[in-house]
This record gives sequence, C-alpha cells and structure tokens, in this order.
Amino acid sequence: MKFIELAKTRYSSRKYLNKKIEKAKILKVLEAGRIAPSAVNFQPWHFVVIEDEENLKKLWETYGREWIREAPVLLILCGDHKKSWKRKKDGKDHCDIDVAIAADHITLQATELGMATCWVCNFDKEKCSEILNLPENIEPIVILPLGYPADIVDENRHEKLRKKLDELVSWEVFKEK
Amino acid sequence: MKFIELAKTRYSSRKYLNKKIEKAKILKVLEAGRIAPSAVNFQPWHFVVIEDEENLKKLWETYGREWIREAPVLLILCGDHKKSWKRKKDGKDHCDIDVAIAADHITLQATELGMATCWVCNFDKEKCSEILNLPENIEPIVILPLGYPADIVDENRHEKLRKKLDELVSWEVFKEK
Repeated sequence: MKFIELAKTRYSSRKYLNKKIEKAKILKVLEAGRIAPSAVNFQPWHFVVIEDEENLKKLWETYGREWIREAPVLLILCGDHKKSWKRKKDGKDHCDIDVAIAADHITLQATELGMATCWVCNFDKEKCSEILNLPENIEPIVILPLGYPADIVDENRHEKLRKKLDELVSWEVFKEK
Repeated sequence: MKFIELAKTRYSSRKYLNKKIEKAKILKVLEAGRIAPSAVNFQPWHFVVIEDEENLKKLWETYGREWIREAPVLLILCGDHKKSWKRKKDGKDHCDIDVAIAADHITLQATELGMATCWVCNFDKEKCSEILNLPENIEPIVILPLGYPADIVDENRHEKLRKKLDELVSWEVFKEK
C-alpha cells in the first residue's frame, strides 16, 4: 500500500471487535515506535502495554468515555523529561514531539496490520500516572487503544474534514490564513 | 513497500544532490502532512515552503551547519498556538504533538518518493520567526530540508542506534529502565 493510502486509511476508531490482539502484532506496532527518530536520538519514550482486565478497568477511569472499554489493549506512550532533548537557546523540551513521532509510527503500523487506534489525549494525566506508578519525570502523553475496528468511516473524510492545502501552505512569504 | 521498511528507510540526510525538487513532489509531501490527524482535528499547523535562493540564504543563518545549504527546499513547519487544542484539566497545549505528526507524515512521504529530509530542531527560533515575519502565535517548530539524498547510511542503524524493545516497553506494570 502506498504511504498516502495507508495514512488515509488510518482513522480514530471508537468501536472495536471483542477480539484479542495477538502478541506478535503488539510487538510489531511497538517495533515501529522503537525505530522512530527523536531529537539527538535520545529516544525519551517508554511504552506501557495494558491487556490485563483489572488494569484496563483502572485505566478506563482516566477517560470518561464508554467506548474505550471495547479496546482489548491500551498502549500508554510516555515521555521521559529527564532524557528528552532541550534546545540550549530557549530550553524548549522536545519530549512531546518525540513521543508524537513514535505514536504516529505505531498508529500507521497498526493500520497496516488491520487494527485501529485512537489518539486519546483528553485523559486524566495525574490519575494515569498514579495507576501506573510513574515517577515524576515520566509523563503519560497519549493513550492509544488498540483493537480490531468495528466502526465504519466516511472514505471522503480527508476532503470534508481537513483544511485545503492553500489554507495551510505559504510559498516563500508567510501569509496568515 | 511495507510500512516498517519505509520507516526504516527514512533517515536524517545531511548531504543532498544539486537537483531541484519538482513542484508535484513538493505538493505530495505537503498533502501527506495535510491529512495528518490532530487533537480535536484542529489542524493547528502552517507549512512554509522556501525554494527561492535569497530566502534560503536568510534561513541558513538560523542554523549554523554548512550541510543545510545543499538542500534545494526548506519546509518550515509551524504551529499555531491560537488554534491548537489545550487540555481543559491542566492546560496542556498539543501544538508540538500535532505538528510532529504532520512532520512525521511528511518525512515518510518524502522517503517513499525517493527524497530525504532531516528534522532540524536546533535552529534559532526567534531569528526564523523574524525572517518569515511570523505573528506571535505562530511558532516555527521544525525545519525540514527536502532534497534528493547524496549520503550513504548504515543499514543496520536501527539495531545499533536504537534501544532494544525490552529497554523501553513495560507490560502491565511500569518498570524504570
């Protein structure tokens, strides 16, 4: 599949089949995250895989939507602020950027393998850190539910729901859009 | 090409052929960024394409490395902090995350099309904003040089230069690594 097709096939799934994910497939999506680039190759990430029912239940409490209960696996992608690169001049921490690259790789790899994900960012970070017993420096940045999707999406969504190129691209001279 | 192969083919190129990039190819990589997901689909990004020699020269001044002068195109991927989603509970701004997803899409699409890129983050943000005449709310987050690569990379780099999976994955219970 061409990259653009793969990227367009990925969507935010909020309905999953009641079907476990094979360990080999979980390892494949993690591998796609592992090889992602990061600032100065510091790889300031940590992936927590949750499949156990008791642990899943605890994590549902960090996100108030019912649909998340359908996902057989939750991946909690964390950033390590002790390890992430900070730009010298202004101290900008690249932790979010690096974890987002790994997360993007993971969502695309999952899509290629017939699975689906959803970027869950609106979760209770403190509660999540408490449940996972994360040290101060480790921030849970995105929760990715992983499962076989059971929803149907509009194939035209990228035309309907995304800005047009000329709304977001400037050539040579920046123009506010 | 399978996704994992594409992701492994991408690398940070610091040597480019003296060869222009066709406009159609620039549009293709921008399209891959355009369709990227973002928090609440707010798409808080703006891509500035620089090909003009005078403008390229100005931008070289934001980054002190000689190699960047070889790239025929510089893409400056910006985030719009006015438009980005902020998490209600703690105000976390998802601008970096969203721009990183679009940037990752762009680097992968460029790779598939036989081009190469490099995540340049260690540039002078203020100088860059000044050159591009960016308003306060628009932050240049990453500069992606785009060109046909002229360097050779170690095919085994993901085994040599990345952490092993068991150094970065925890199953069920977080373990500091």
